[in-house]
Amino acid sequence: MQYLKWEDGNEYDGSQINPSWAFQEFGVKDSTIVSWLGPMNILGKNLIDYEDVGLDIKGNMMLNFIVEHFDEQPGSLRLAYHRQRMLVMITRDKLLDYGIKTTQDGDDIFINNKKLSVSIATASISSMKMHFALNITVDGTPEDVETSALEDNGMTIEQIHQLQDSIAETYIETIETIEKDIVKTKVF
Amino acid sequence: MQYLKWEDGNEYDGSQINPSWAFQEFGVKDSTIVSWLGPMNILGKNLIDYEDVGLDIKGNMMLNFIVEHFDEQPGSLRLAYHRQRMLVMITRDKLLDYGIKTTQDGDDIFINNKKLSVSIATASISSMKMHFALNITVDGTPEDVETSALEDNGMTIEQIHQLQDSIAETYIETIETIEKDIVKTKVF
Amino acid sequence: MQYLKWEDGNEYDGSQINPSWAFQEFGVKDSTIVSWLGPMNILGKNLIDYEDVGLDIKGNMMLNFIVEHFDEQPGSLRLAYHRQRMLVMITRDKLLDYGIKTTQDGDDIFINNKKLSVSIATASISSMKMHFALNITVDGTPEDVETSALEDNGMTIEQIHQLQDSIAETYIETIETIEKDIVKTKVF
Amino acid sequence: MQYLKWEDGNEYDGSQINPSWAFQEFGVKDSTIVSWLGPMNILGKNLIDYEDVGLDIKGNMMLNFIVEHFDEQPGSLRLAYHRQRMLVMITRDKLLDYGIKTTQDGDDIFINNKKLSVSIATASISSMKMHFALNITVDGTPEDVETSALEDNGMTIEQIHQLQDSIAETYIETIETIEKDIVKTKVF
Amino acid sequence: MQYLKWEDGNEYDGSQINPSWAFQEFGVKDSTIVSWLGPMNILGKNLIDYEDVGLDIKGNMMLNFIVEHFDEQPGSLRLAYHRQRMLVMITRDKLLDYGIKTTQDGDDIFINNKKLSVSIATASISSMKMHFALNITVDGTPEDVETSALEDNGMTIEQIHQLQDSIAETYIETIETIEKDIVKTKVF
Amino acid sequence: MQYLKWEDGNEYDGSQINPSWAFQEFGVKDSTIVSWLGPMNILGKNLIDYEDVGLDIKGNMMLNFIVEHFDEQPGSLRLAYHRQRMLVMITRDKLLDYGIKTTQDGDDIFINNKKLSVSIATASISSMKMHFALNITVDGTPEDVETSALEDNGMTIEQIHQLQDSIAETYIETIETIEKDIVKTKVF
Repeated sequence: MQYLKWEDGNEYDGSQINPSWAFQEFGVKDSTIVSWLGPMNILGKNLIDYEDVGLDIKGNMMLNFIVEHFDEQPGSLRLAYHRQRMLVMITRDKLLDYGIKTTQDGDDIFINNKKLSVSIATASISSMKMHFALNITVDGTPEDVETSALEDNGMTIEQIHQLQDSIAETYIETIETIEKDIVKTKVF
Repeated sequence: MQYLKWEDGNEYDGSQINPSWAFQEFGVKDSTIVSWLGPMNILGKNLIDYEDVGLDIKGNMMLNFIVEHFDEQPGSLRLAYHRQRMLVMITRDKLLDYGIKTTQDGDDIFINNKKLSVSIATASISSMKMHFALNITVDGTPEDVETSALEDNGMTIEQIHQLQDSIAETYIETIETIEKDIVKTKVF
Repeated sequence: MQYLKWEDGNEYDGSQINPSWAFQEFGVKDSTIVSWLGPMNILGKNLIDYEDVGLDIKGNMMLNFIVEHFDEQPGSLRLAYHRQRMLVMITRDKLLDYGIKTTQDGDDIFINNKKLSVSIATASISSMKMHFALNITVDGTPEDVETSALEDNGMTIEQIHQLQDSIAETYIETIETIEKDIVKTKVF
Repeated sequence: MQYLKWEDGNEYDGSQINPSWAFQEFGVKDSTIVSWLGPMNILGKNLIDYEDVGLDIKGNMMLNFIVEHFDEQPGSLRLAYHRQRMLVMITRDKLLDYGIKTTQDGDDIFINNKKLSVSIATASISSMKMHFALNITVDGTPEDVETSALEDNGMTIEQIHQLQDSIAETYIETIETIEKDIVKTKVF
Repeated sequence: MQYLKWEDGNEYDGSQINPSWAFQEFGVKDSTIVSWLGPMNILGKNLIDYEDVGLDIKGNMMLNFIVEHFDEQPGSLRLAYHRQRMLVMITRDKLLDYGIKTTQDGDDIFINNKKLSVSIATASISSMKMHFALNITVDGTPEDVETSALEDNGMTIEQIHQLQDSIAETYIETIETIEKDIVKTKVF
Repeated sequence: MQYLKWEDGNEYDGSQINPSWAFQEFGVKDSTIVSWLGPMNILGKNLIDYEDVGLDIKGNMMLNFIVEHFDEQPGSLRLAYHRQRMLVMITRDKLLDYGIKTTQDGDDIFINNKKLSVSIATASISSMKMHFALNITVDGTPEDVETSALEDNGMTIEQIHQLQDSIAETYIETIETIEKDIVKTKVF
């Protein structure tokens, strides 16, 4: 599994959730976690969450992660959502290092009951994918939802870049230790 | 999925990791998380972790959890270890409510680099199982490992019982929200 | 798994077989069996059975069932068809209570060699789906097939509503007892 | 899938549920349904149903079926129990041809609330297995259960042999039509 | 699994890789290997290999194979590619009978470092598919790739028809012996 | 996936086919192909092939391979046998480099109709395993089978060590290119 950075400033329009997007963008033939800072504005046709139909899913500046796993064939939506929950919990743990305490409801992270993150997982027959993004500013986030953001909680862009690496690396490490634990396990 | 309590004082000897143990003990035909306070002393023949062969895996008083899932048929060791990691991360988050900061390495929890927990996951064709336990005291823990314990970090037995419920309930809720998220998801 | 009723009179045009249709219609985040009395007229683009391409699949008044299962991830077409066969056999057993003897060929039910039912199963990566419908009248059924109907065999609308509940409830119960049997089973 | 007859008079002691038993007995490298008339007396070590521990599972003369499927790799206990339910429902349908009306609870068949059958399914990593047996006489059936039998309901041994073939052949045909339906199905 | 011949001269335009194509063309409800001699000219919308986007995938006369498997539900892309590699290796072994020595890189066959074959595998929820084709002449093959062909290496059309049968039959036999080996195997 | 060498001279007694043997022997937490030159003498209790019960499976000097894969969870016996066939075909291809022409029947390799190899695959819930071995001499091979050997066909021990590396490396490469091909594939 590889950690790739997409150039900051790129927009997440939802098409990056498509299977094999990272291969088409980067030519990498592996499971990947791709991350960048940039705006989000999901086009209706790219919506994955049937609950979000008709809603604006956007923000002017977000810390984005796109994860794709090819290890389990065919892809399992259940496993995808377990991995998404792990990514969310890793992020919450890392935010503590910056003095940011959060709460969690499903796959959403909150600071003082204000929504900090968006996330979805999905799957195709070939891979499991997820998108996970944290507000860097509240600018451009939907008006009908109370939102929070990393900058408003005192994080600098430099710290956000540190956080970005730290989340991606710990996520990969978590997946790798799971694979190693499988090998040492007696089964029935 | 049901949360069951086994009577405090019962010993974890490793046989409780066997498939359908909770059905045989409680008669419950469902996925379960069973919890109790009691000693741990794993018999050699019940060892699941090939890395622990020849080691003492024990403690005089621990907060034990045994989880069994029947949803995925056949059981997947990979999914079992993802769920174990989620249980570990939920526990670490709950410990913050008692002022206890921890670190994590694989599936182990540490307080000030001292080992607080033991855990294993396994699977059979019918179910996925895990055992997860936290030291309540360091008494009776292996001498060749530096260990920490809940009581030494200021928790009372009453608080440990609260923690116990809180971990079990949040774990079940996490599994349930994942199942609900699957339903609302567009796939490729 | 939940039993939902869609308002009688709604038309089955084939789009209801799409994944997560019940969530989009009812907002329910669960496996479901949805039932209603109404016409069927499957649009060409919604055809699931390659054998039916170019054929009329219709009837003026039918007892419809749409089943969706999210338990097995990813969805298995093989399991979907096993469940469809169970639904067909449950229905045949229930019809005996109304004095209606039937025969079966594949997934089709016949009364005196006249076709009483239509059915298909399908799957996506997220769920297993099936549609199953019984003619209430032969009006509007394809002219090139000899068809039979519940009303022509003496059933009143009230009895058909009883039958409807009875089929749905027994189907759900069958799935539930299977899940319970898994828990009590020793495996190799 | 092949239909094999084991010599009448052989005893079902539970060991026939082991994986690849039919290969070891008949040398056949295929999925099989094996059937014979004979006594049943399950040895404790061969018990598959944890609910039956300590109970007598026996009868002096039964119509036995042992089914083994190798098509799904690895074997799924969920699919095994679906197939078992189909076998039970096929049997109930066939009994109507001999004027025997039955009811069903889980995987048990009853005549006038008296238990006619026993059954279990199980799985290993290589195959799905089930045992299903109908009392021919009530002699030797457990004393603490009210039982019914085929002979007491007017069936001759000749008719039971006809029933035996009819059940086995319809079961195989059902599995085969499911496999064919998969091929003609459009998926999402 | 059945071996079918499509009429020589038919063009492979990529649409034959769609799920259930063989059922729609031949009405056969089974796993199939379909073969024919004819041109290849893959339309952009039918491209399966993201690496080939924008490239010409064509040839004036090729020995084509389309394989579809319905045995594993849902279809696994990993298993599809293992079967594709087996088909490639079977072909290389058969070519030795005609004095043609080849080398292999991934799923490509070479004669003297000149590319002889094209191939892709894919999957849907219902089946695993692959296309595999050998150049009969180099006419019409892409100009930016050095290609080789069966006729240029001395094979007559009659021999190519023999080769065609031999590859298809050995492939089916290999799949069948694997299924038989499963039955005779003790598992853990 | 890692290639490991076990010290030449070690005996294959069948216990090396057990799940996680390579982890227990080498401490490696990964999929592995382990190879060594040494005698084979399979103890009855370690027999995996029900067809071999009661037979001698032995040889005084063999080129042994033990492969274990943890990528697919749970392990699939069908995939295990596909990989075994690939290993057999890779070996046959490599033998051509030493002027040795072979034929194949199932998973057996023959030189002039004399059996050169033995092989089995198996699986547990955690992994897929196979053993594959080639006779270096015919000494100690079963008397009731006509056998061939690498030395009798002109290979030196040095060449056999080259062959050993070449088979293991090409096998790993084949698995790796399959994983890469999955990433570049458009699915339905």
